[in-house]
Amino acid sequence: MDIDLARSLSIANGSKIMLFVMDGLGGLPHPETGRTELETARTPNLDALARESACGFTVPVAPGVTPGSGPGHLALFGYDPLKFNIGRGALEAAGIDFDLRPQDVAARGNFCTVDGSGAITDRRAGRISNERCAELCAKLRGIRLAGLPAGRQGVELFVEPVREHRFVLVLRGEGLSGAVADTDPQREGAQPLEPRATAPEGEATARLVARFVGEAKRMLAGPSTGSGRAEAANMLTLRGFARRPDWPSMADVFKLRPAAVAHYPMYRGLAKLVGMEALPAGPAIDDSIATVRENWGRFDYFFVHYKYTDTAGEDGDFDRKVAKLEEVDAAVPALLELGPDVLMVAGDHSTPAVMAAHSWHPVPFMMRAPRTRADACDAFNEVALQRGSLGTFPAMDALPLALAHAGRLTKYGA
Amino acid sequence: MDIDLARSLSIANGSKIMLFVMDGLGGLPHPETGRTELETARTPNLDALARESACGFTVPVAPGVTPGSGPGHLALFGYDPLKFNIGRGALEAAGIDFDLRPQDVAARGNFCTVDGSGAITDRRAGRISNERCAELCAKLRGIRLAGLPAGRQGVELFVEPVREHRFVLVLRGEGLSGAVADTDPQREGAQPLEPRATAPEGEATARLVARFVGEAKRMLAGPSTGSGRAEAANMLTLRGFARRPDWPSMADVFKLRPAAVAHYPMYRGLAKLVGMEALPAGPAIDDSIATVRENWGRFDYFFVHYKYTDTAGEDGDFDRKVAKLEEVDAAVPALLELGPDVLMVAGDHSTPAVMAAHSWHPVPFMMRAPRTRADACDAFNEVALQRGSLGTFPAMDALPLALAHAGRLTKYGA
Repeated sequence: MDIDLARSLSIANGSKIMLFVMDGLGGLPHPETGRTELETARTPNLDALARESACGFTVPVAPGVTPGSGPGHLALFGYDPLKFNIGRGALEAAGIDFDLRPQDVAARGNFCTVDGSGAITDRRAGRISNERCAELCAKLRGIRLAGLPAGRQGVELFVEPVREHRFVLVLRGEGLSGAVADTDPQREGAQPLEPRATAPEGEATARLVARFVGEAKRMLAGPSTGSGRAEAANMLTLRGFARRPDWPSMADVFKLRPAAVAHYPMYRGLAKLVGMEALPAGPAIDDSIATVRENWGRFDYFFVHYKYTDTAGEDGDFDRKVAKLEEVDAAVPALLELGPDVLMVAGDHSTPAVMAAHSWHPVPFMMRAPRTRADACDAFNEVALQRGSLGTFPAMDALPLALAHAGRLTKYGA
Repeated sequence: MDIDLARSLSIANGSKIMLFVMDGLGGLPHPETGRTELETARTPNLDALARESACGFTVPVAPGVTPGSGPGHLALFGYDPLKFNIGRGALEAAGIDFDLRPQDVAARGNFCTVDGSGAITDRRAGRISNERCAELCAKLRGIRLAGLPAGRQGVELFVEPVREHRFVLVLRGEGLSGAVADTDPQREGAQPLEPRATAPEGEATARLVARFVGEAKRMLAGPSTGSGRAEAANMLTLRGFARRPDWPSMADVFKLRPAAVAHYPMYRGLAKLVGMEALPAGPAIDDSIATVRENWGRFDYFFVHYKYTDTAGEDGDFDRKVAKLEEVDAAVPALLELGPDVLMVAGDHSTPAVMAAHSWHPVPFMMRAPRTRADACDAFNEVALQRGSLGTFPAMDALPLALAHAGRLTKYGA
């Protein structure tokens, strides 16, 4: 639904909506058994829920399109992922609770390892520890870019650790632009690329970034300050230069008081971009449910994120994905006990273990709500859901459907 | 998928995609048996393919919309038929290998028969022979439009036979416009209409066309040069005045090296408008397969067109359509032997024999590819495919799906 239409139809009421996202939920058949991860997992609670729900599949972005985590979630939040586009840098900054200001430019950084010729030998620098990442970021913060021509006031620099080899670079100053190309060549054996402007307004920023990269390279290549062995993180790459998007909030558009319960920074960051309050949550699903329970009265929309189905899928670990699905299944009674009026069980995209990657396949979906029609789904998996009454539909339609079932959408037209 | 999105996500790889189109594929139940043409035909090979494929139905243009051949094919080529619109004249010109230039205006012509009062008694002039059509076109080429106010250089005229009563008129000169209304009243008993401008920029062209029609009428009404009997083709009608569209090619948008294997000129013409190379092909399906085989290494996308299912449907000949479907079925093993990574079996629209016309009904579709999910289709017909995992979807989504399954679409968003 178009944002303006949603804004004109949505009303607040006392109902509670929950969106439970299993990241990378959808799968594909195992070559030996012919059964998907969901078909293989023993999920009596999810199956029972399917029998009480309206079922189907979501298409996160468009048929054939494999979504990143950003578009996959934005669609489930009711925002058209082809219209609400966010640069990786701004997303990463939001995900670490960095207070990105409207004029700032952010980029996602990776520490990496280069050989004597400057070619990348490890794009992730052996996944250095979080502590080492924080030390290196602190070091790089010492770089001074003042006096360069991006603005009269010079440029303030932030280098913030994310986890392992990942960090966020933020430039703050006048006249900065996100029109700078990635320096990450996205493969090993190649050298990091020079920062180049992708449009005239990016030229001053590209020069600043080049200056930063040059200084950083000298610092990182210097004598190891750590364990005595050669420093794995002896270079860096940057990608996704972007400013903070200025989007309408879910409170404004959908008249919801929304909360996000997610352990991973990126999902909290995404949620905050549409105006959700990010609540603290531990890594386990029970932690998330406890957080929801404690905050039940303060909000009327809860986005609960479960990451490990995706991680297992990305690792190509079919059995672990099955185990994670069963872990979720065991938590379903506690979810139901909270008593949401509308409960959506969804995924941001498919991550079939046999592909060890995100994929374009439609994603299993069910919604337990008042006023749904019965359908013939007796289990929650990629085959049974083909009999679902919702069919295969755009993921951005899920929230309007939930609002309708929650009595939160008024009539259109006289 | 929007063309710009497709362009930004598509990559080339070594995979091969084949689109096999049975023109007018979809049907409706025979009133006596209750079974459609596909349900009636014995198609063991297509049925076996359906069991290995993801199945569903395509909607060529929009629900309820009966497509012409142009929109029906453009959608399957991945181009939104509501955005990529082509005038009939430009289509006919492309279909006879006429080198239509950007400034030219083309129209589709019919020789017809008029009575003494000028009213049309046969819109197709008794379907005159191809030879007679060529003779008449040669005669009309003698008309001179030089000196008329369309441009300082005068206007060059081309009159090109298509087949039977059909020809193409092309005007070449400065300042011409396609904004001219059809002169074809589309029914017998009416007189051909005067060429009128549909917008101010079409006025000069409309005057030129009126002059051409006037001269042609005199020439065609003259003493018969042929068999001695009265000339059936004693007048003409024109429709679909249009310039050549300037569309992005499939190579540019989808990173494909595309080939068209079609016996009928119109389908070759359509394919060339999106940048396909049209390969020579005889009338039989085996000719087409031989052409594909000979050119297998040079292309990575093959559009193979089979016309006769539509012809039988248009003729209202249920049994012949059944026979043609069985003819295709027999060729399926040879198609599979070519070894396409992704094989789509599709139709540009339905042509139910009981309607003897194109229709709006969704069109049977299946795609055999790596990484499809299992579905419950055990036969290729309008009833069995209702259990397909692809559901009923826009025909323009078929190519993006094929690209995804061929590993040719990169991820959208971070």
